[in-house]
Amino acid sequence: MSIDETHHPALQSWVESANAPETDFPIQNLPFCVFRRGEAPPRVGTRIGDEILEVTGLSTLKTVMALSRKALAELRLLLSRTLRADNPDPPKHLIHPIYECELMLPVEIGDYTDFFASIFHATNTGRIYRPANPLPPNYKYIPLAYHGRASSIVVSGTPIRRPEGQLYDGTPPPAVGSSRRVDYEGEVGCFIGLGNALGQPIRMADVEDHLFGLCLLNDWSARDFQRWESQPLGPFLAKSFATTISPWIVTMQALEPFRVPRFSRPLGDPPPLPYLDGEDDRERGGIAITVEV
Amino acid sequence: MSIDETHHPALQSWVESANAPETDFPIQNLPFCVFRRGEAPPRVGTRIGDEILEVTGLSTLKTVMALSRKALAELRLLLSRTLRADNPDPPKHLIHPIYECELMLPVEIGDYTDFFASIFHATNTGRIYRPANPLPPNYKYIPLAYHGRASSIVVSGTPIRRPEGQLYDGTPPPAVGSSRRVDYEGEVGCFIGLGNALGQPIRMADVEDHLFGLCLLNDWSARDFQRWESQPLGPFLAKSFATTISPWIVTMQALEPFRVPRFSRPLGDPPPLPYLDGEDDRERGGIAITVEV
Repeated sequence: MSIDETHHPALQSWVESANAPETDFPIQNLPFCVFRRGEAPPRVGTRIGDEILEVTGLSTLKTVMALSRKALAELRLLLSRTLRADNPDPPKHLIHPIYECELMLPVEIGDYTDFFASIFHATNTGRIYRPANPLPPNYKYIPLAYHGRASSIVVSGTPIRRPEGQLYDGTPPPAVGSSRRVDYEGEVGCFIGLGNALGQPIRMADVEDHLFGLCLLNDWSARDFQRWESQPLGPFLAKSFATTISPWIVTMQALEPFRVPRFSRPLGDPPPLPYLDGEDDRERGGIAITVEV
Repeated sequence: MSIDETHHPALQSWVESANAPETDFPIQNLPFCVFRRGEAPPRVGTRIGDEILEVTGLSTLKTVMALSRKALAELRLLLSRTLRADNPDPPKHLIHPIYECELMLPVEIGDYTDFFASIFHATNTGRIYRPANPLPPNYKYIPLAYHGRASSIVVSGTPIRRPEGQLYDGTPPPAVGSSRRVDYEGEVGCFIGLGNALGQPIRMADVEDHLFGLCLLNDWSARDFQRWESQPLGPFLAKSFATTISPWIVTMQALEPFRVPRFSRPLGDPPPLPYLDGEDDRERGGIAITVEV
């Protein structure tokens, strides 16, 4: 992946709202979605300003996610040229106003893994269970994670019912009732497109070939249930009543201009084990993302 | 569900191998599978003796699993009558010898939850981490479980590659290599057919309407990886390199003759919380299953 003409900051679109300086959806972004307008069947689209451009011939994003990196770059170029202000034949019949569209879960999710990616979050959580030694001893060596319930991932805006479960105040038996401590977590979701065969690892240098795009994610949590249920097997019902994701998948291509150098390893931290140390990552850096809640 | 003519012990089939006293697949069983013979597309079948009866018109078990309890009983009755020795017009063209068929994963699995169902297993595992107090304090109140990786569930017989990961002997950093402690677990898998809407709980009395059938399951485990990675978030890579399941789904209807009274609550155990206490279960008992490994 590299910066190409689709990232040029001066590009403008014939969709006027995409040229507003405050928009999150300029022609340089072009995130994918799946939407429905009226009684029509769901279709793949890309967001441009306050509109959705229907990507014709596609009813599911699975096809797009399975494309090679090269084909994805070509598709992005095609969408960019289609939407540019200098397109002599703009396909206005493929444009749908966002307020007339229902946004769907952008893709059927097969599996969902929740990584304990923030050292601050891991330390804060650890303090509840192990005040003297909050950060687990494995934290700096192995990516800690657990599988979540894929079937309760819904699109942002879906009404969420406050879950019922066991409320334990330290004296058995636990009471049963609605969670009093429903919490949210601002996270980034990563969509894995191309998979691997069972038993065939993916080398760090090839990771980006498998990463299709990112979205915002709210990992809803019932903290009272979580504290009672999560030892020894980890969070379960406290997390699986709902996970909401943004309807927009921002592609890795769109994020290429936001590369920053990789952080230096904090003093005293062990070096990453060789199989987790991406040379590519060292050279190309990471992507700077600020999540606001 | 109840005992009906399909369970009668005297029933015989025109498929001779189903009448052998030692067969696991007499006409009273009729488990479902998905199979492929030669270049033909996968089809739904039911096992009878050493043969598979093709269930015509079906390419996926999803359709069967979504049937109501009544419709399932009717389908079972139809299959039973079709295969009975007194059928004047046996459909021999729908019979496939098992040794000529490739057995597939019987259904696309959306989510997979692993329950810590055995108190003996929970106590043994707890001894590793908490020798003084092995059984977690929540164990007798809440069903402990974690989500597994649905995409690494494969049909029994699939070659499994010994996984690579972190080997920690107590002195950092961990080494990286192949697991030396790959282990198996003999378990019973439950297939949930009819689902529920997000936020709509299923009452204990209705649970069996959602339970389609059972299979044998081997929850492969890399014990060395598990010990290092599984605190605080539970098992992850130690379990998700492979889970194998039997290709045969034995329906709940087929198990009806194996009902036994529910065990009495062990002395000193707390009563189940009301929402987990099935009256139906109290009246009808459970199903006695012996798993041999």
